[in-house]
Amino acid sequence: MLKKSRSIIFLLLSLLLFFSCTEQKMQNSSNPLPSWNEGKTKQSIIDFVNEVTDPNSPGFVEPKDRIATFDNDGTLWSEQPFYFQLAFALDRVKAMSPDHPEWKNTQPFKDVLENNLKGVMESGMKGLMEIIAATHAGMTTDEFEKFVIAWIDTAKHPTKHMLYKDMVFQPMLELLEYLRENEFKTFIVSGGGIEFMRPWTESVYGIPPEQVVGSSIVTKFEMVNGKPVLMRLPKINFIDDKEGKPVGINSHIGKKPIFAFGNSDGDRQMLEWTQSNSGKTFKGLVHHTDEEREWAYGPDSKIGTFSNSLMDEAKSSGWTVVDMKNDWKVIYPEN
Amino acid sequence: MLKKSRSIIFLLLSLLLFFSCTEQKMQNSSNPLPSWNEGKTKQSIIDFVNEVTDPNSPGFVEPKDRIATFDNDGTLWSEQPFYFQLAFALDRVKAMSPDHPEWKNTQPFKDVLENNLKGVMESGMKGLMEIIAATHAGMTTDEFEKFVIAWIDTAKHPTKHMLYKDMVFQPMLELLEYLRENEFKTFIVSGGGIEFMRPWTESVYGIPPEQVVGSSIVTKFEMVNGKPVLMRLPKINFIDDKEGKPVGINSHIGKKPIFAFGNSDGDRQMLEWTQSNSGKTFKGLVHHTDEEREWAYGPDSKIGTFSNSLMDEAKSSGWTVVDMKNDWKVIYPEN
Repeated sequence: MLKKSRSIIFLLLSLLLFFSCTEQKMQNSSNPLPSWNEGKTKQSIIDFVNEVTDPNSPGFVEPKDRIATFDNDGTLWSEQPFYFQLAFALDRVKAMSPDHPEWKNTQPFKDVLENNLKGVMESGMKGLMEIIAATHAGMTTDEFEKFVIAWIDTAKHPTKHMLYKDMVFQPMLELLEYLRENEFKTFIVSGGGIEFMRPWTESVYGIPPEQVVGSSIVTKFEMVNGKPVLMRLPKINFIDDKEGKPVGINSHIGKKPIFAFGNSDGDRQMLEWTQSNSGKTFKGLVHHTDEEREWAYGPDSKIGTFSNSLMDEAKSSGWTVVDMKNDWKVIYPEN
Repeated sequence: MLKKSRSIIFLLLSLLLFFSCTEQKMQNSSNPLPSWNEGKTKQSIIDFVNEVTDPNSPGFVEPKDRIATFDNDGTLWSEQPFYFQLAFALDRVKAMSPDHPEWKNTQPFKDVLENNLKGVMESGMKGLMEIIAATHAGMTTDEFEKFVIAWIDTAKHPTKHMLYKDMVFQPMLELLEYLRENEFKTFIVSGGGIEFMRPWTESVYGIPPEQVVGSSIVTKFEMVNGKPVLMRLPKINFIDDKEGKPVGINSHIGKKPIFAFGNSDGDRQMLEWTQSNSGKTFKGLVHHTDEEREWAYGPDSKIGTFSNSLMDEAKSSGWTVVDMKNDWKVIYPEN
């Protein structure tokens, strides 16, 4: 009797240890990507992951080379009616305006304060750069981070009335997690500001700061009252868009991705760069086709342009195009 | 009898699973840093690691924030009589010279081909930039990587007659491993070229390309015969030295380190930046004091200058200074 119960204890202990060791692998096989409808799109992802993770497959890729890069705006979260980082900048102008009485009579700030978005847009690149310089520079990296955190935790979308950070795509969150379960290293490679994204990408996407690549302004090391700081200067350092994305990937990662996802013409070169990897690769594009649940836009949109020539290249090169309306069961996470 | 042997099998199975699960933790406690002599220096490292990894310690740091940054030249491998990357550049000039007959009569190339190192040095920054432009630019990133790999696998030091890649410090290899066992993420932050280091840091230091920060030249995305490449242009992009090190750390990692190791004035700002982290931090400097086994140099050396003011700051700030001669049992790995 004693021996029998000892056997059972050993058995249970063995099973417990066995399952704690293999828990991660178990998750992999149990219904991945639940918010994706069954069909060609979902299957193309699963087939790819199965092929590169199977040591007996000719397409097998070592875990250390399983690099996956994701655009952010329009790929991981929404980007309409304008990039959310612009909303942050406009909100910052309003918050800073008590210290800048002159803005009441200076464009483009006057238009921002009067909620004349059309006027802001018409101020063009010059106006936009003035807004960026005023709201993104002239402070330390630590100070900027605090502004971003305060904003992302409270700011809401003008028409959806959701927190911006809740307007992330549930199917893409599942895809990021699915890849990580399969020992991929997931990176963001975005035209957005690297220091605008880093304070919240870990909690929202599970992607730590060191795996975020983005556009940047110049920073300068200075001693202020005997304490070192990095001052943010009103000068562009790097634009991580279009031809810049492979440059940013090479600079920050130093390896070609085997998996890349974007949604617009700004991601074309990242997908081409990924495709030039000598091994098996996956290239995906989110196509915004869902007017009801999100937005529908393509070649004629100034934000997230998905040109006809991009669609042609996707078709001729065998890239996976996600039809948001038909491929995704839900858009945003349900709270 | 059957039950007894079953019990034993279960016991063995349990133990096997238990040890396979805890193998990593076991390594941690068993005599870390065997090539470091017992004493204050070694103990300061172990005390720090114990404090930040103990969940019950006030200095506990979450694994995700255990960022450790290491300078390369003079910290992880030797740097005398001149930086090894310069040896690579000089060897490249010689290898390329058949295609450049004009170099026989053009400085600084003439001096390189005639092994007149004094002349090369006297050509100053202008001459050096010409050598860098000729040997590090005008090719794709893939082509450059092949040159680096071919060189690092065969090139030997002029006086030690060892492969350069074998002139890495065994005690520092153990330190890198010890930190990783304790869930630190180890980075290189070097004034050397990022693309000169990346092809071999993983096999030599266990540090993957995405955890290497360094100086860089500008690269440009181009389509060549329908295939995307990154062309290396003869233009400096970023110098990852002195004030540049905190900038490079912020750009690539986005977090302040809690542990940093350097060996010269070029690392001072990296250590100050680390020190400004709000939590518990460790700052270390390798002092080259071993004329017999390696080299002895300090404030008067042009390579790896360790100025008196750096020594003063190290003392007043409580930084750990490694006395190579007395703190290290061996310098290089024994093959």
